[in-house]
Amino acid sequence: MPTVSLTRVVPFAAAHRYFRPEWPVERNREVFGACTSEHGHGHTYECHVTVTGPMDPETGMVMNLRDVDVILEEEVTRRLDHKFVNYDVPEFAPGGLIPTGEALAVFVWQRVVPRLPAPVRLVRVRIQEDRYLYAEYAGEEHAG
Amino acid sequence: MPTVSLTRVVPFAAAHRYFRPEWPVERNREVFGACTSEHGHGHTYECHVTVTGPMDPETGMVMNLRDVDVILEEEVTRRLDHKFVNYDVPEFAPGGLIPTGEALAVFVWQRVVPRLPAPVRLVRVRIQEDRYLYAEYAGEEHAG
Amino acid sequence: MPTVSLTRVVPFAAAHRYFRPEWPVERNREVFGACTSEHGHGHTYECHVTVTGPMDPETGMVMNLRDVDVILEEEVTRRLDHKFVNYDVPEFAPGGLIPTGEALAVFVWQRVVPRLPAPVRLVRVRIQEDRYLYAEYAGEEHAG
Amino acid sequence: MPTVSLTRVVPFAAAHRYFRPEWPVERNREVFGACTSEHGHGHTYECHVTVTGPMDPETGMVMNLRDVDVILEEEVTRRLDHKFVNYDVPEFAPGGLIPTGEALAVFVWQRVVPRLPAPVRLVRVRIQEDRYLYAEYAGEEHAG
Amino acid sequence: MPTVSLTRVVPFAAAHRYFRPEWPVERNREVFGACTSEHGHGHTYECHVTVTGPMDPETGMVMNLRDVDVILEEEVTRRLDHKFVNYDVPEFAPGGLIPTGEALAVFVWQRVVPRLPAPVRLVRVRIQEDRYLYAEYAGEEHAG
Amino acid sequence: MPTVSLTRVVPFAAAHRYFRPEWPVERNREVFGACTSEHGHGHTYECHVTVTGPMDPETGMVMNLRDVDVILEEEVTRRLDHKFVNYDVPEFAPGGLIPTGEALAVFVWQRVVPRLPAPVRLVRVRIQEDRYLYAEYAGEEHAG
Repeated sequence: MPTVSLTRVVPFAAAHRYFRPEWPVERNREVFGACTSEHGHGHTYECHVTVTGPMDPETGMVMNLRDVDVILEEEVTRRLDHKFVNYDVPEFAPGGLIPTGEALAVFVWQRVVPRLPAPVRLVRVRIQEDRYLYAEYAGEEHAG
Repeated sequence: MPTVSLTRVVPFAAAHRYFRPEWPVERNREVFGACTSEHGHGHTYECHVTVTGPMDPETGMVMNLRDVDVILEEEVTRRLDHKFVNYDVPEFAPGGLIPTGEALAVFVWQRVVPRLPAPVRLVRVRIQEDRYLYAEYAGEEHAG
Repeated sequence: MPTVSLTRVVPFAAAHRYFRPEWPVERNREVFGACTSEHGHGHTYECHVTVTGPMDPETGMVMNLRDVDVILEEEVTRRLDHKFVNYDVPEFAPGGLIPTGEALAVFVWQRVVPRLPAPVRLVRVRIQEDRYLYAEYAGEEHAG
Repeated sequence: MPTVSLTRVVPFAAAHRYFRPEWPVERNREVFGACTSEHGHGHTYECHVTVTGPMDPETGMVMNLRDVDVILEEEVTRRLDHKFVNYDVPEFAPGGLIPTGEALAVFVWQRVVPRLPAPVRLVRVRIQEDRYLYAEYAGEEHAG
Repeated sequence: MPTVSLTRVVPFAAAHRYFRPEWPVERNREVFGACTSEHGHGHTYECHVTVTGPMDPETGMVMNLRDVDVILEEEVTRRLDHKFVNYDVPEFAPGGLIPTGEALAVFVWQRVVPRLPAPVRLVRVRIQEDRYLYAEYAGEEHAG
Repeated sequence: MPTVSLTRVVPFAAAHRYFRPEWPVERNREVFGACTSEHGHGHTYECHVTVTGPMDPETGMVMNLRDVDVILEEEVTRRLDHKFVNYDVPEFAPGGLIPTGEALAVFVWQRVVPRLPAPVRLVRVRIQEDRYLYAEYAGEEHAG
């Protein structure tokens, strides 16, 4: 049986702000630039989720797209769409994680991994902020 | 001399919220749906500005793109990029205009019109919220 | 009150075939080329529907997007998405209209016009077949 | 000599239907949803084919694009463009494979692999069904 | 019979330079900026050609796409694709027209108009230089 | 700490020509086709640069985007934007490398690698020539 990957793309419209409350304003400005502006700003993000597994010879599917969509509705759309990430998502509350594309990719990875039925595995999460910038996480830890 | 139009597209990343403070919460929810969520959300907008005029036979230009870009930098990017429209743009402050695509198109139109040197005229402003939605304003008033 | 237009884009996945049963095979082949292949083929279409009207000063809206979406769900998605146009849409049954982009644009126009509440008016329907081809109808009749 | 990969994207317009004739209608409906609708539907697909090999220092090429295009014309365009996959491609005939993106990616892989001249190798085939869904095959077998 | 428009998009890859030989270098630099760099630069252009006419009730077509494509192959692709506009297209030779998007739109308009069979008419030519810039010509003369 | 990758996309408008002066004209024509036309042609390229590293828990960043942008401005935009690659970039001068997407990807790789601060590493450079063609280099040498 061939092992095939399947990628589903889910858009979400969200606001965010880069800000560390324990830092002085100037350091926030220096590190985060325009992204630290007081009231935040926003993007039409796209979240690309790639799963892999053996293709079922009867259905031609790695995983039923309907089941993928239920998971992404619950873990991506409900949590992030039409939200201000810093205020609506506890992990990104002031003093917590900064809602960069990198951190959002790790966030989605951690939520989707336990939802997938074996032998389907998560391969990669991409958070595309705009046409010219995206972050990807594939589950690796830095062995510093 | 042929009359040609020129369209410049400027992206901007902004947050917004649909909310009328003088309305009860339920009415805001009923009229504005998810767009009234408490902390707001955001988009990677594109603003398309179309100008028209005679093409200069020496330069092949309707208007020097460098001059178009100065105007759009001052009237679109500086006012809207990396902003929360309701808090950073006075016209859209709570109690004022709701920052829909329609209202943003009229806002940009009003700011760009007085900046153009005759005989160049503004033809149309488009505010594209995402791939599936945009508003356009061409300077017309409703003769109700 | 400014008059603003609003365009909503709705994708639909459909199959079609260009074929006139009253014509000999060779004439079908000559006029319709590969589009007359026996079993049909398909596209991921996009239908762009543009409406116009005065912008309500309280809501910033020409028409509530939720209402636009109900109409397009009923008149575009339910009729055309995941359909073989020649077999699933009576107007395009064998011997009837050929399901070109042009004819689909007129079809959507005729169904959407009576659904819009005055003073909102339909401006234009675009059927985009792929990145390199689209047809548009604005309600005009040929005064031949 | 650096090893570089080259990806060519080929669009094709095709119709398909998900249906197992040996299953009752309700099971087809349950597993395949709207994709089992009786007459089929269609997409403007994109097939992305990625090959890799050493870059020839004289031509700057991994493989002459003209030769890539001949192979893709014969193995992708002629077999799939303007076709109803279930009826025009024997492997996907009723009772055979279901024409999912996954199965189409494996199908293209198997046809392109034997056509490539060593040392050029096939790396990956992507079948993009629409903007929000694609399948990829890289030649791996499931070691279940 | 409804009057419908049809738009065909044709890409072409071309190089160009903005330069008036009768001007001093500084004036070229001041007016044309980076576009006057000595050896020229290039774009993957898209040319959008929109025609309109009554939809033939038998074929569902305004004009057979095959005939549109022959005209665009001869008037757009052969003249502009894989060319350096200033050197390969006489109208844009040094001392003549500057190959801006505006001038290219007028150029294509003038070549396509006489090729269309009545009652089909040319509506508009768009030259898209990149994602953020395009010029459009609709056959109007400036009544200065 | 999770290891995350970040991809930045930089457009550049350039002209190029495929030509080996030591070959007869017919061989250039046979190998390079239309790409060898005398005066060259051009593209609106996109250069995608992917870096990877541990995500800083304080900033949520693999590398500050401002620093990525300084490097890409110096190594990609200044060297390639608004240039005729064969004449403005010494490595691609007549008799040297042919400016294919493959060779441009290796060129950018070699310039960006020494600019990245450890532990950030370069993963991949993609040169997208148009919507249907791209080359990627990941630093591998052919072990022929």
